Amino acid sequence: MDASLQRVAREMLTSYSQVGGLNNSDGPNMPSKLAVGTICEELLRLLFPGFHDDGAVHGHELTEITRSRIADIAERLDAEIFKSLRTTDAACKHEKARLILSCFLDSLPGIRELLRTDIQAAYEGDPAAMSYEEIVLSYPFIETVAVHRMAHVLYNEKLPLLPRMMAEWAHSRSGIDIHPGATIGTHFFIDHGTGVVIGETCIIGNHVKLYHGVTLGARSFEKDDEGHIVKGGKRHPNVEEGATIYPNSTILGGETVIGAHSTIGANVFLLHSVPPHSLVFFEEKQLKVLDKTRRKSAKTKAEPIEWSI
Amino acid sequence: MDASLQRVAREMLTSYSQVGGLNNSDGPNMPSKLAVGTICEELLRLLFPGFHDDGAVHGHELTEITRSRIADIAERLDAEIFKSLRTTDAACKHEKARLILSCFLDSLPGIRELLRTDIQAAYEGDPAAMSYEEIVLSYPFIETVAVHRMAHVLYNEKLPLLPRMMAEWAHSRSGIDIHPGATIGTHFFIDHGTGVVIGETCIIGNHVKLYHGVTLGARSFEKDDEGHIVKGGKRHPNVEEGATIYPNSTILGGETVIGAHSTIGANVFLLHSVPPHSLVFFEEKQLKVLDKTRRKSAKTKAEPIEWSI
Amino acid sequence: MDASLQRVAREMLTSYSQVGGLNNSDGPNMPSKLAVGTICEELLRLLFPGFHDDGAVHGHELTEITRSRIADIAERLDAEIFKSLRTTDAACKHEKARLILSCFLDSLPGIRELLRTDIQAAYEGDPAAMSYEEIVLSYPFIETVAVHRMAHVLYNEKLPLLPRMMAEWAHSRSGIDIHPGATIGTHFFIDHGTGVVIGETCIIGNHVKLYHGVTLGARSFEKDDEGHIVKGGKRHPNVEEGATIYPNSTILGGETVIGAHSTIGANVFLLHSVPPHSLVFFEEKQLKVLDKTRRKSAKTKAEPIEWSI
Repeated sequence: MDASLQRVAREMLTSYSQVGGLNNSDGPNMPSKLAVGTICEELLRLLFPGFHDDGAVHGHELTEITRSRIADIAERLDAEIFKSLRTTDAACKHEKARLILSCFLDSLPGIRELLRTDIQAAYEGDPAAMSYEEIVLSYPFIETVAVHRMAHVLYNEKLPLLPRMMAEWAHSRSGIDIHPGATIGTHFFIDHGTGVVIGETCIIGNHVKLYHGVTLGARSFEKDDEGHIVKGGKRHPNVEEGATIYPNSTILGGETVIGAHSTIGANVFLLHSVPPHSLVFFEEKQLKVLDKTRRKSAKTKAEPIEWSI
Repeated sequence: MDASLQRVAREMLTSYSQVGGLNNSDGPNMPSKLAVGTICEELLRLLFPGFHDDGAVHGHELTEITRSRIADIAERLDAEIFKSLRTTDAACKHEKARLILSCFLDSLPGIRELLRTDIQAAYEGDPAAMSYEEIVLSYPFIETVAVHRMAHVLYNEKLPLLPRMMAEWAHSRSGIDIHPGATIGTHFFIDHGTGVVIGETCIIGNHVKLYHGVTLGARSFEKDDEGHIVKGGKRHPNVEEGATIYPNSTILGGETVIGAHSTIGANVFLLHSVPPHSLVFFEEKQLKVLDKTRRKSAKTKAEPIEWSI
Repeated sequence: MDASLQRVAREMLTSYSQVGGLNNSDGPNMPSKLAVGTICEELLRLLFPGFHDDGAVHGHELTEITRSRIADIAERLDAEIFKSLRTTDAACKHEKARLILSCFLDSLPGIRELLRTDIQAAYEGDPAAMSYEEIVLSYPFIETVAVHRMAHVLYNEKLPLLPRMMAEWAHSRSGIDIHPGATIGTHFFIDHGTGVVIGETCIIGNHVKLYHGVTLGARSFEKDDEGHIVKGGKRHPNVEEGATIYPNSTILGGETVIGAHSTIGANVFLLHSVPPHSLVFFEEKQLKVLDKTRRKSAKTKAEPIEWSI
């Protein structure tokens, strides 16, 4: 190794020792991003046998494959749950990890039933969907919502880190960012999905349909006497049963409620509640439609013609 | 395997047998997501030799590499096409898969020519683009549009499943969601791309330029007498030659036509047609610009100061 | 190989020789997308030891791991930098690549310090963030901003191609598209991130916070006498210290300045500067909120009830 590389190595090591908060070599053993990805993939195979495998899974091998998958997942998850617990409680016993793991595995059959309602909602809500199989194989939301419903179980057990890492694994694949704290009812459908953000304290009823780019976010952050942001608290909207929200709408605030069966149009910025059966939209008459061919002669500085290419 | 894991395995197996629509172990053999990903990668290597490989492809080896790639792709695609056909027609003969494969392979040289026009459009449409090579190596749309143009050939052959899976493979990499049914002209350029949605029945002319976050979507869904959504039908807009649509605009409806050479501004929600050479935008005077330092003393409930951090 | 596959191979080879701009087999050796991905992953491991590895990195092995990583990165980067230089200057000497590599490696400890401020900004700016470790493990922006701060060093050395490929590697993982030319201050935080676009000539001050879907883009493109777009020039906005921009807002233009400590609401389309301490938003009274149950009896063509499902 030549002298200049040796110097860079020395400086990086100095940086590791001086600039904290960036590495875990001296702290508790963090859960591994790679391991979390492998676990999520294995869980999807368990929930949808044959869909995430290289080929079909045949009926006669299903029992053996299922038992072996569950044993594998249990071993991997146990390790990551325990590491996650230790990050906030260094004295935590392994027994606690086992209890959370057990509660998690017990929830899986129920999650399969919920996912069945989500697939049904997609089939009934999208004229382009031709079969349930097409939805499992090519609708990105189904994978993200599957991971969410599992991460939410761990979140409810107050497990730190791991649920958020699972959510972010799904987000990086689909562009759908659901905080594991969000509570989501049955028959949930997100079409296309890219850019959707669902905050930690959202409560979403049954039969809700979101399009891509919809944000259910926080409005303002409380600060303490020293000007630091206050962690926790109800910060995100509720969306009641049967509501539909069109693309790129941004709905903010912990007291904001989208009433049941309401329809929110596209590109809306909404900060207050609307009653059930509302229809909310920007009026098209607020749009300006000009004729570019006429405007070229009368171009003035005040007019936005410049951004027309 | 301990007793509690055995119990979970039993419950999952019960769930597989009771909750249908989630697995394919007893149904027809579905196309494999993993295989579709491998095929798409191989096809991109065939279209852009040297760009998706670990190193350069030298002229003297090009013939051998090309022949070997085509043989490999043909074998893999044949299997996935046949599985896709079988999902909707259990009696389908393998011969039909071979005909579709042949038609698909024949289309590849023509698709290369179309992609050349797309690369040219990016070079001419983006001041940041410094070379054709930069576009192939670092513009996400080119990969997605390449996969779309190939998936569209299979869609036109009425092949189920596989074209949608190819589109979703591309979507998960670029955030650009183009339904394989969409018809797209030459010289097509999507800048940045994340969040773009182009619906199944869109018809897009030549020389069209879209920015990220643009939606060309459905407006309303027809329902039959039993309240079920009607599948199919013209549901998405047409965009005529030379039009440009700025980021995050949402344009909906099967009768909506964006006239040739029109410019649609950013963040517009548009439900009706505009004639050729239109300029459409929200007037900036509808924006409110307030001075926060003055407002802090005069804060009232009706004002949105709360969401300022 | 059967006759029809041989024919397809012949046609593809003809296409390679006729349709230029699509392959590099006869041109200079392009940098490899695969190699750039591996380099970015190795660089993230170097910046955040233990976070991107399979398990924890222990203190006693840190020296050896760091030295070995730097040697590996140096060798790989050297090759890709040299290939990038050769694409625009076929006579370029290898020495020039070594100088750029050296300058790049020297910048890494300083980049670690900058990233520390970004992590701090996320912790202080998001009530859902519970620890610095959670931010490194599950906030997508931190990886993208890390890659950006490194790519920006190479961009400043006027290296073609490679910086853009690094940016696009990060974009495909997080949905955040930052051109390597953008200048970004300390304490930078992007929450959620999907759909963010930051243009080449943006200058962003310290303590700026962006939400997902924010665009800092170009407004109009200058054309030369032959109608070709002029490459380069200041085209993108500046955002001054302490400003916050809410989701899906689109801000365009090289002369546009968002004044210090301003707040821009969600879904805004802004083409001009605003002074420091501004609050910019669409007034909610421009939203129409109707009662759908009443409207069903009085439905008229002019009303947008049709897009309610």
